[in-house]
Amino acid sequence: MDYSAEKLHEEKVFKDPVHRYIHVQDRVIWDLIGTKEFQRLRRIKQLGTTFLTFHGAEHSRFNHSLGVYEIVRRITDTVFVGRPEWDQEERMLSLCAALLHDLGHGPYSHSFEKVFDLDHEDFTKAIVLGDTEVNQVLSRISADFPKKVAEVIDKTYESKLVVSLISSQIDADRMDYLQRDAYYTGVSYGHFDMERILRVMRPREDQVVFKQSGMHAVEDYIMSRYQMYWQVYFHPVTRSAEVILTKILHRAKHLHEQGYSFKHKPHHFYSFFKEEVTLEDYLKLDEGIVQYYFQIWLEEEDDVLRDLCARFINRNLYKYVEFDPAKEYKKLTKLSKLFEKAGIDPEYYLVVDSSSDLPYDFYRPGEEEERLPIHLLMKNGELRELSRESDIVDSISGKRRTDHKLYYPADLVAGHEEICELLD
Amino acid sequence: MDYSAEKLHEEKVFKDPVHRYIHVQDRVIWDLIGTKEFQRLRRIKQLGTTFLTFHGAEHSRFNHSLGVYEIVRRITDTVFVGRPEWDQEERMLSLCAALLHDLGHGPYSHSFEKVFDLDHEDFTKAIVLGDTEVNQVLSRISADFPKKVAEVIDKTYESKLVVSLISSQIDADRMDYLQRDAYYTGVSYGHFDMERILRVMRPREDQVVFKQSGMHAVEDYIMSRYQMYWQVYFHPVTRSAEVILTKILHRAKHLHEQGYSFKHKPHHFYSFFKEEVTLEDYLKLDEGIVQYYFQIWLEEEDDVLRDLCARFINRNLYKYVEFDPAKEYKKLTKLSKLFEKAGIDPEYYLVVDSSSDLPYDFYRPGEEEERLPIHLLMKNGELRELSRESDIVDSISGKRRTDHKLYYPADLVAGHEEICELLD
Amino acid sequence: MDYSAEKLHEEKVFKDPVHRYIHVQDRVIWDLIGTKEFQRLRRIKQLGTTFLTFHGAEHSRFNHSLGVYEIVRRITDTVFVGRPEWDQEERMLSLCAALLHDLGHGPYSHSFEKVFDLDHEDFTKAIVLGDTEVNQVLSRISADFPKKVAEVIDKTYESKLVVSLISSQIDADRMDYLQRDAYYTGVSYGHFDMERILRVMRPREDQVVFKQSGMHAVEDYIMSRYQMYWQVYFHPVTRSAEVILTKILHRAKHLHEQGYSFKHKPHHFYSFFKEEVTLEDYLKLDEGIVQYYFQIWLEEEDDVLRDLCARFINRNLYKYVEFDPAKEYKKLTKLSKLFEKAGIDPEYYLVVDSSSDLPYDFYRPGEEEERLPIHLLMKNGELRELSRESDIVDSISGKRRTDHKLYYPADLVAGHEEICELLD
Amino acid sequence: MDYSAEKLHEEKVFKDPVHRYIHVQDRVIWDLIGTKEFQRLRRIKQLGTTFLTFHGAEHSRFNHSLGVYEIVRRITDTVFVGRPEWDQEERMLSLCAALLHDLGHGPYSHSFEKVFDLDHEDFTKAIVLGDTEVNQVLSRISADFPKKVAEVIDKTYESKLVVSLISSQIDADRMDYLQRDAYYTGVSYGHFDMERILRVMRPREDQVVFKQSGMHAVEDYIMSRYQMYWQVYFHPVTRSAEVILTKILHRAKHLHEQGYSFKHKPHHFYSFFKEEVTLEDYLKLDEGIVQYYFQIWLEEEDDVLRDLCARFINRNLYKYVEFDPAKEYKKLTKLSKLFEKAGIDPEYYLVVDSSSDLPYDFYRPGEEEERLPIHLLMKNGELRELSRESDIVDSISGKRRTDHKLYYPADLVAGHEEICELLD
Repeated sequence: MDYSAEKLHEEKVFKDPVHRYIHVQDRVIWDLIGTKEFQRLRRIKQLGTTFLTFHGAEHSRFNHSLGVYEIVRRITDTVFVGRPEWDQEERMLSLCAALLHDLGHGPYSHSFEKVFDLDHEDFTKAIVLGDTEVNQVLSRISADFPKKVAEVIDKTYESKLVVSLISSQIDADRMDYLQRDAYYTGVSYGHFDMERILRVMRPREDQVVFKQSGMHAVEDYIMSRYQMYWQVYFHPVTRSAEVILTKILHRAKHLHEQGYSFKHKPHHFYSFFKEEVTLEDYLKLDEGIVQYYFQIWLEEEDDVLRDLCARFINRNLYKYVEFDPAKEYKKLTKLSKLFEKAGIDPEYYLVVDSSSDLPYDFYRPGEEEERLPIHLLMKNGELRELSRESDIVDSISGKRRTDHKLYYPADLVAGHEEICELLD
Repeated sequence: MDYSAEKLHEEKVFKDPVHRYIHVQDRVIWDLIGTKEFQRLRRIKQLGTTFLTFHGAEHSRFNHSLGVYEIVRRITDTVFVGRPEWDQEERMLSLCAALLHDLGHGPYSHSFEKVFDLDHEDFTKAIVLGDTEVNQVLSRISADFPKKVAEVIDKTYESKLVVSLISSQIDADRMDYLQRDAYYTGVSYGHFDMERILRVMRPREDQVVFKQSGMHAVEDYIMSRYQMYWQVYFHPVTRSAEVILTKILHRAKHLHEQGYSFKHKPHHFYSFFKEEVTLEDYLKLDEGIVQYYFQIWLEEEDDVLRDLCARFINRNLYKYVEFDPAKEYKKLTKLSKLFEKAGIDPEYYLVVDSSSDLPYDFYRPGEEEERLPIHLLMKNGELRELSRESDIVDSISGKRRTDHKLYYPADLVAGHEEICELLD
Repeated sequence: MDYSAEKLHEEKVFKDPVHRYIHVQDRVIWDLIGTKEFQRLRRIKQLGTTFLTFHGAEHSRFNHSLGVYEIVRRITDTVFVGRPEWDQEERMLSLCAALLHDLGHGPYSHSFEKVFDLDHEDFTKAIVLGDTEVNQVLSRISADFPKKVAEVIDKTYESKLVVSLISSQIDADRMDYLQRDAYYTGVSYGHFDMERILRVMRPREDQVVFKQSGMHAVEDYIMSRYQMYWQVYFHPVTRSAEVILTKILHRAKHLHEQGYSFKHKPHHFYSFFKEEVTLEDYLKLDEGIVQYYFQIWLEEEDDVLRDLCARFINRNLYKYVEFDPAKEYKKLTKLSKLFEKAGIDPEYYLVVDSSSDLPYDFYRPGEEEERLPIHLLMKNGELRELSRESDIVDSISGKRRTDHKLYYPADLVAGHEEICELLD
Repeated sequence: MDYSAEKLHEEKVFKDPVHRYIHVQDRVIWDLIGTKEFQRLRRIKQLGTTFLTFHGAEHSRFNHSLGVYEIVRRITDTVFVGRPEWDQEERMLSLCAALLHDLGHGPYSHSFEKVFDLDHEDFTKAIVLGDTEVNQVLSRISADFPKKVAEVIDKTYESKLVVSLISSQIDADRMDYLQRDAYYTGVSYGHFDMERILRVMRPREDQVVFKQSGMHAVEDYIMSRYQMYWQVYFHPVTRSAEVILTKILHRAKHLHEQGYSFKHKPHHFYSFFKEEVTLEDYLKLDEGIVQYYFQIWLEEEDDVLRDLCARFINRNLYKYVEFDPAKEYKKLTKLSKLFEKAGIDPEYYLVVDSSSDLPYDFYRPGEEEERLPIHLLMKNGELRELSRESDIVDSISGKRRTDHKLYYPADLVAGHEEICELLD
């Protein structure tokens, strides 16, 4: 029997607080969920350090990945099925890519990628194509199926329509995480009428488009996204935790490079320190492992490493002030000197962090990161770019917003009057 | 200034998906939340292995502890304040006990307590009374304050009213976890009108009582509790994961006792193996640490340990069948022998697990575990026990329900025909 | 083209707060919704006088009828379709019966039926079978289709399976109104996992049955029903308004029979007074019309009629005390005499009202109102009656609960000491 | 005892789906709710004809008025109380004005005001100041209290702070109706974090201001308002019903002026036709009365009146096309002539309807309708106008959006080819 068409004897359902139920009828999907690489996503938080700001945000990428799969399943099985522009042969490919799109995320990806020069998307591809349980399942469909899945996730697959389901300015990935992250944090942003958006989706050769009658639901989605970025994802307290986490990794790497002798050998980190991470090593790392090291490092000799780990584990974070890099360059230099004078290493204890978001953009051909704009399908069959129809989207379209903050440990600088004055 | 009366310059709020906001005005509470012992609760899941059944249930005990605190705060500050039967002096004690009541929970408490003969309540007391940051904060109020807090949690405090806020058949602890666990798992049980229950609470000398006009909200709470126990807490898949986890601990302890040489020394476990756990060792253990060991044990020589760890980490759980211990004793003996014959150690691979719940009970003086019944405050001032007024509560009152299941690894027994027949 | 198979050019959706969207694809359904008899349901509240207790309960039967239709649509189109036990030919019949099942309800049906000896189910049949727009639409399907619809609603249709979708102890009607009435009143009862219940429904020859795995959702539904009856439907304040309303109708009929000359002729009521109501007259009556009369009767000469109307319009309701008809018969007689002595007509101002509910019943053959019990479909294919599997349902099964109250106008009796003492 | 300070023996609560509970502790508020003028609001829908588009929108102004009261109560009793800038003497005045602010609304106010040249705010004042039960209650506080209440509602009261609680670009009125209308219609817009907004409100001499930390909740409110206006309040189908309703009133007035003899005398309308409406007449009118007339007018001789009433009662509404008054003036003239030629009176059957909204505006001194902008209270104590801090509000600030549509009866014009072509 054709493995890719094989149905489970009885549909399996997962209770999900966001989509109520996640439905699995396909043997392939069930098998993928059971692989150890997919189960590993349970050990990696969807929002990294955000739980230190919003205590509810403890949900994992496993959670989110099931959600993205479910959204794509609803699209293919209840909206696209039977439409001439949709090739039902692409269904299983779309479902697999949706389920697996975040497979390569590691613990606290943002910080790890920065410090160790990694890219989680490379690891996603490596897992899909490498010697893994996931690859075994996918290969049972056909020899070239893993490659196709990797291409969809990589946005290089020939059908841009399939790619746009997973990666576009309004895709299943974003629709799931906005709702899910809002649910777990408890914030009132992040609500939009997904049921309506799904119902007005229409397949076109190059991308998914949206019937014009659903424009307001799409607007609402764009606004949700905007608010979630600034209220949740870029929350300054979360960024403070991330600054510290990044500095822990820096310090550990630095110590290793200096030949420092760790009390307990950090086996799991060696290939990261050397920036020669194998897939096997990468898959061994998860947040439990990372926290294990942060906790045993509380007993290390190095003051900086110990202090930073204690801050992260016990949530004793840095304070912050607004910072304008254009105008306050000199101030930063001055502070840096004062920190050194006070014996507080500015490399680790005086950090500028910048966040930046472009809530929506129309098409700018030739620009570095070409973003596919959202297209409305008008009653007369014409396509029109969203910001031309929506005043409210037009008003924020193409406007990048950036925020810079300067982070420092209030407890350590207390008493150093010159520093405190500059930071006030 | 009196530390216990000190207010924060500005109220702090935590966004909480269940209670919307958690409000902190007191310096003491803020300081307690900041202690490392309280922050440790972020690394211990509220529902242990339940996330392997309900993927949303990844929330921590930190979450829940804040919730219990908030409920007690609402009771004392908006319902009890000003009532002659309530001594506002007990407010801070009630808040601290509510916040700290689960402080001694370790990772997967149920399994750890069983295997290593521990009691999380002993550790709660030890943390409150011992050399900890929590104790330092509490001691600033008064020398005997930590002891009082420990007594409330231990249910030995002189004011039974204060005790009943935290520990009774309808207390802040239960009201929080039913709602919270329902929210994170996404199940539709677990909803009741807490706002109404709080509003009809009245302080009496020995316990909290409930105005009769709110009886139906209380009924609804009892029913929620009933459903949550059987639908969520005792879910057979969750119990399967717990069975495996318990067996991992058993095996590791057994190996240690046999003088087995671990590749990586399990430092964190030594005092557990010896059943001489110090507070310091206990506090070092959390779920990240435990999972670290389970993962490095994947590389151990011992087949059983390795296999069990792989099952837990990769969610390859045991199957189960109904089991009646009274009638099927012989069958179990027979199965046990067949397992041995097949080279599958029944000690680890054939496990009876029993769950049992008493949804509500009226007072049975002299019985082992005296449960305080719920009392309604009638319009004429009289108190009446709930099951005498509520048909629906009466119908389940005092009726213990027990469920036994037999767990085994379907993959290992496959092919052993005699076994499969007996287990079918 | 076959009218019954005709699809709308584009699916129509109604935004619905309970089911999110109500979907109409069939021309027949769209046409039925557009008939004036169906639009009339907008002018009749789902819960009659309940809005005087729960101010949110202002929703109409139009609302509810769409909801019942939508539930049956989901059952037939996503759960039953393709199953051998289900005849897809019955789909349109089921949808029409679901949509139209309440068509014959008039304003404040309960009171009108009592006073004028009417039966709303007779009028439903009369509308379906008579000279109406609804009948015209149904007849376009086939000459005998209206009769079939009437039979389903009347529970006499040959397929008991179809009947059970609309009328049984767990049917689309009840599932909609419990959720809908909970939503509009704002009470926390009335929630159960309908999505799960729908998914475990299975068609059998004589009725819908429920896979055993969904038993707890069914239990939860039974409990919701129980709570809604006593907390909302039988709320004593609502019954007070209904007592007054009934007495207004009594008085008006009585005056008419006595040859009383109304200032404004109550044209709409004449055939009701004579108990010779034609379908045409019946359809003209709605709550707006009734309230028009109640308001112009504020200017009538008759003191009782005027007073009762003012009470209803301005919500100046009767107070109530518990009443035990078995034991307090003499007290009632005595009160009646005292009322007469005080010049307060006991016929209108001293009223016993009784409410009674049987939350669930197993099958009692031969009894007057044979109720079809709920059957679970066990894994082995066997059917088992719900209360044999569910402890909690068993505990309330077959137990009728009745409540009697004595209503009177507190303002009128004030000052009459003997009366007040007896009523205290 | 001071009536204004009198508390109820026991707090009364109303179950409310939007605010969960509405709390009444003050005797004055309880008495006001019981007046017949306030109870009359139960007979007037909050959203007029919107229920013909969103079937859930059947809620009354009674509902909303309680909600506005509750919001102001929470502000005064939990946020403002004790702050030096707030005069607790104004509490009762604020509560009364909140509760009564919509008291003068009649049935379908928008259409009635247009046709009969009325102003509901004049009637609110008349009820508060005239010979009414409401006035009696208010006068018991003090002789000039009714006048003060009228002034607050009229925005002429000396304390602009009190006025701004009820009437500003972010006031209790708007916060209630956005949430309430979203709840009853079921749309996903209309959600914002009111609890947070209330908590950051601060009293200042001239108005309520908002702590800057709550800016994003305020942004979210502005966006909710924007979406609700265009998705719900200005929905073209609702406007179609309103167009017809307005034309019914026009026609009836016209017929009366022409000396037409109605079969049933429209007593309730005479003073409206003459535009000499007394308070007594005004209070007699509600939606039940209006619908009574529309239904008896179904039997009138006049074809236009009969047809229009049938359209409204049976929801047979006008279709619409986009219309640009600047460019399509000639088309309208031409259509008008074609309608006349076809015997379809364009006065009643060809109607341009325009809707226009300004979602937020900063201060424009000297302009006709001076709108008070929303001010943020910065950390340094400074006030800053919202659009200067919020990019997203800035982008829509001061931008009026207008929509014109041309309405006509599709059934009547069918077959008139020239007309159909122009309207296509």
